[in-house]
Amino acid sequence: MSFSGVFPYLVSPIDEAGNVMRNLLADLVDHLIDEGVHGLAPLGSTGEFAYLSQEQRRRVVDTVISASSGRVPVVAGVASTSTADAVAQTEYMVNSGADGILAILEAYFPISDEGVEAYFTAIAKAAKGRPVVLYTNPQFQRSDLSLPVIERLSRIDNIRYIKDASTNTGRLLSIIERTRGRMEVFAASAHIPTCVMMIGGVGWMAGPACIAPRQSIELYETAKAGDWARAMELQRPLWKLNEVFAKYSIAACIKTALDLQGFAVGAPMHPQMPLNDAAREEIAGVLRSIGAL
Amino acid sequence: MSFSGVFPYLVSPIDEAGNVMRNLLADLVDHLIDEGVHGLAPLGSTGEFAYLSQEQRRRVVDTVISASSGRVPVVAGVASTSTADAVAQTEYMVNSGADGILAILEAYFPISDEGVEAYFTAIAKAAKGRPVVLYTNPQFQRSDLSLPVIERLSRIDNIRYIKDASTNTGRLLSIIERTRGRMEVFAASAHIPTCVMMIGGVGWMAGPACIAPRQSIELYETAKAGDWARAMELQRPLWKLNEVFAKYSIAACIKTALDLQGFAVGAPMHPQMPLNDAAREEIAGVLRSIGAL
Amino acid sequence: MSFSGVFPYLVSPIDEAGNVMRNLLADLVDHLIDEGVHGLAPLGSTGEFAYLSQEQRRRVVDTVISASSGRVPVVAGVASTSTADAVAQTEYMVNSGADGILAILEAYFPISDEGVEAYFTAIAKAAKGRPVVLYTNPQFQRSDLSLPVIERLSRIDNIRYIKDASTNTGRLLSIIERTRGRMEVFAASAHIPTCVMMIGGVGWMAGPACIAPRQSIELYETAKAGDWARAMELQRPLWKLNEVFAKYSIAACIKTALDLQGFAVGAPMHPQMPLNDAAREEIAGVLRSIGAL
Amino acid sequence: MSFSGVFPYLVSPIDEAGNVMRNLLADLVDHLIDEGVHGLAPLGSTGEFAYLSQEQRRRVVDTVISASSGRVPVVAGVASTSTADAVAQTEYMVNSGADGILAILEAYFPISDEGVEAYFTAIAKAAKGRPVVLYTNPQFQRSDLSLPVIERLSRIDNIRYIKDASTNTGRLLSIIERTRGRMEVFAASAHIPTCVMMIGGVGWMAGPACIAPRQSIELYETAKAGDWARAMELQRPLWKLNEVFAKYSIAACIKTALDLQGFAVGAPMHPQMPLNDAAREEIAGVLRSIGAL
Repeated sequence: MSFSGVFPYLVSPIDEAGNVMRNLLADLVDHLIDEGVHGLAPLGSTGEFAYLSQEQRRRVVDTVISASSGRVPVVAGVASTSTADAVAQTEYMVNSGADGILAILEAYFPISDEGVEAYFTAIAKAAKGRPVVLYTNPQFQRSDLSLPVIERLSRIDNIRYIKDASTNTGRLLSIIERTRGRMEVFAASAHIPTCVMMIGGVGWMAGPACIAPRQSIELYETAKAGDWARAMELQRPLWKLNEVFAKYSIAACIKTALDLQGFAVGAPMHPQMPLNDAAREEIAGVLRSIGAL
Repeated sequence: MSFSGVFPYLVSPIDEAGNVMRNLLADLVDHLIDEGVHGLAPLGSTGEFAYLSQEQRRRVVDTVISASSGRVPVVAGVASTSTADAVAQTEYMVNSGADGILAILEAYFPISDEGVEAYFTAIAKAAKGRPVVLYTNPQFQRSDLSLPVIERLSRIDNIRYIKDASTNTGRLLSIIERTRGRMEVFAASAHIPTCVMMIGGVGWMAGPACIAPRQSIELYETAKAGDWARAMELQRPLWKLNEVFAKYSIAACIKTALDLQGFAVGAPMHPQMPLNDAAREEIAGVLRSIGAL
Repeated sequence: MSFSGVFPYLVSPIDEAGNVMRNLLADLVDHLIDEGVHGLAPLGSTGEFAYLSQEQRRRVVDTVISASSGRVPVVAGVASTSTADAVAQTEYMVNSGADGILAILEAYFPISDEGVEAYFTAIAKAAKGRPVVLYTNPQFQRSDLSLPVIERLSRIDNIRYIKDASTNTGRLLSIIERTRGRMEVFAASAHIPTCVMMIGGVGWMAGPACIAPRQSIELYETAKAGDWARAMELQRPLWKLNEVFAKYSIAACIKTALDLQGFAVGAPMHPQMPLNDAAREEIAGVLRSIGAL
Repeated sequence: MSFSGVFPYLVSPIDEAGNVMRNLLADLVDHLIDEGVHGLAPLGSTGEFAYLSQEQRRRVVDTVISASSGRVPVVAGVASTSTADAVAQTEYMVNSGADGILAILEAYFPISDEGVEAYFTAIAKAAKGRPVVLYTNPQFQRSDLSLPVIERLSRIDNIRYIKDASTNTGRLLSIIERTRGRMEVFAASAHIPTCVMMIGGVGWMAGPACIAPRQSIELYETAKAGDWARAMELQRPLWKLNEVFAKYSIAACIKTALDLQGFAVGAPMHPQMPLNDAAREEIAGVLRSIGAL
């Protein structure tokens, strides 16, 4: 199985009692697949993995897998500070039918390159052949993947993708040049998708695709066809979405936007605060400007 | 109940299968109480709270409470990114007999001051009158407590202590001056205990006290008696312990030192790496230099 | 006068006695113009402006202006912590015949947005109508230009360009969208030039262009013609140059490379250290791989 | 000659035309010596060295040396990115009669430990036997002195003092333990002077001493006499001064306070902004609370 295209990072709709709103989440999955997304990625940053209990994480992924019914691949997030816990999460996701694993290393103490490599290697093994997407976000996670570690990990059979959520697009080119033929790159919301496609990326995994799936897919198809001039025309207005996403707390931003679009996914998990009215209005304005509201 | 003096941050001895080594942990508790420590703090940074499962955390605290049998107060660590989870942890600890709560905010996304305040307020309420120690460590946690938030939190009845693990001793004086009569300050291992005692602190909560309990208590008693010249004489050689603790990964350092002292507490949790022989030898040298080996 | 294309950041060749090696610098200028560069930028980061005396800075710029004899525009660096000093530097450069000013704010204390804006406004006024290029490098300078400040500065008539040396390419797109019609963007060496051209940039100002002028110009012309597939083919091998430039201290790297190419421009200014043999060999290898040695 | 006690960091009073206000500076020097300070330190951070021209720096130091007439030692600041420039500055200061050199390394590119060591060694040699005070401020300078470099530098005969302006008091104890008998430590304004005296410091070099010289000296004498309880009584109210000094831009804060005390030293150098009325009123309140207004 191979991944490419637009993979929205799904939000995790949780009610005040802590229950996953499964019907709502299933509706969102249906909506996104109907709009044409190429895959789904529950439990990324936008999915508030860092705020969910083990039980909530499992429910979210089970719901997404069940709702998508094999129509598109589901790449489930696994995130931990602990190798043993990450392996257990991976085993659960694989047994539940996830098509791939988005692997995240949380850190409290600094971890040596050797430890980082061992962590991702253990996840890859537990994934039993399913593709693993390395995910590194130096803005929120306390560890980062060095280029030599990425290069070594790319030699493991089923570690086949990386999503680098730094803002450093040059780093993506360095990764591409070092891992060609073994690993593919997905853009994150801090990168300009058109640029990442041009340097050789295969798509993007990002929260904003949740709220502008149709526009994202049109951009992807245009870029994939090599029509760069038209891609940039589509890209310019869409960039405003990435800007508000960076300005406001990520999960709060996407949950607010989905609420505006009629998906009552609720507030971000406490102690995150819901956005105020001015932010809500700014997000609505951006959605309107790109035809998403 | 009021807390003061030397509270070692306990390590969490976990075997390769993931089980808490309860007998060994109980022996360590006995040893430290015999040496005269004034309290025990399981699930601090040294206790690798960030690497343990819910079940492991509970076992560690239950074991420590049971082993101490009320001889000294037990202040149990509660740490989460999520308010609901922190409240659930607090309720468990309180029901298990913890005498106080060491409250830690983990963060993934940036949290506003309002959110930070709500998080600690919720823990304080769940602690049902037991004293709460705020713990902030800007080096490892992705949030920090601002002075205005600390001042507001100090007005909550049972938020009575703070342990600030920054390296900024002046900040401790600013806290003391702003919260006098409502909140007391414990030193962390990055501060010079004698200095913190002189500016008005009431003791320290720190990993190194696990491996030099007798020396720590002698220093505490001397400082408490106001014999500052003698306190500095005791402080100078002990500072080497804080230096190696900062140089090597905290939990790995204390676990190695305890192993040298005959407590086979095992390796730090993966993907942390055990220390190499040179580090082990350096730690042994420091222990010998202060009469702790 | 308008600027676009490839503007090498020139090194400042200084002998051990502190004298500017004027003949050598003039030869380098001739060489680069012969290779086809579109302009010259003395006293950027690569030009070690931060290490030169007032007298050395003046000599460097005078030499470059004299050697270029109007064949290509010369954009001279002005950098200071102090507004008065920056104005005096600008006046000197303008009187000496510089065609434009590259304006840099050094900072010791944090400077408010209001202060930042006043600083660059004063330089623009002193430039007497000549185009000003804002230059911001958050990696080495202790101040940064916020988007609102950039937007306000873009409304000053002769502030017409910006070179942003962050690694954040998305920020460049945000700048382009906000200042369209008033300000143009040059790429820095941390950005992928082809990407910046595609999003609307007009060229690049960068140290590596000193040592690969011909290859840089070919890439520029290809990108300008909209032949993006070919541009990426040219870009891939050239990116290695940007990688070594980031890996080794910027001025030291370019001076070493020029020395390998036969321009004995000397060592970087003390207390910078010359590169060791392994670094020299790695740089030589990269130069060979792109046909620049 | 040996240094100890309270050394105010002098402000640099510059009028709008850029001239050093020599009479005013001489009056300030007289006032501080009358109040009992043990030495004077022109061209520290508070003295805005980073904003002054070579000529202004020289005028400031010449004025201070002339006004003090040998009554107290003058330790003149030398700061540069460049070794050659730092040596030239040192030679000027020594020839003008400075009793010691406060040595500062500015940095643009990262400098290796070897380069850092060579820089300070060159200054020490140029100081021709006069004592050198190493000054490191990781908050504003882009380089820092590692403990191994400090230890090696302490073996140079006339490098006899260090002022570390980090907020990390534990680092000072590490320095003291490593350099005993060769190097003495002065506190900076971010440290609690009483703590630094207790761990073995010999005084402090700090901006706030400019505006509370009498109170500073009383604290110093009390601490020196080992009366730590009384020292802490004096310290508590004085700490408010360090807090406003950290809150507001350092030079702006001290210039404002001196203006309130009747020394019309003018505004901080552009593009620094003068403090607003609220800040001025807060500073006045602190001065009143310690009897300095």
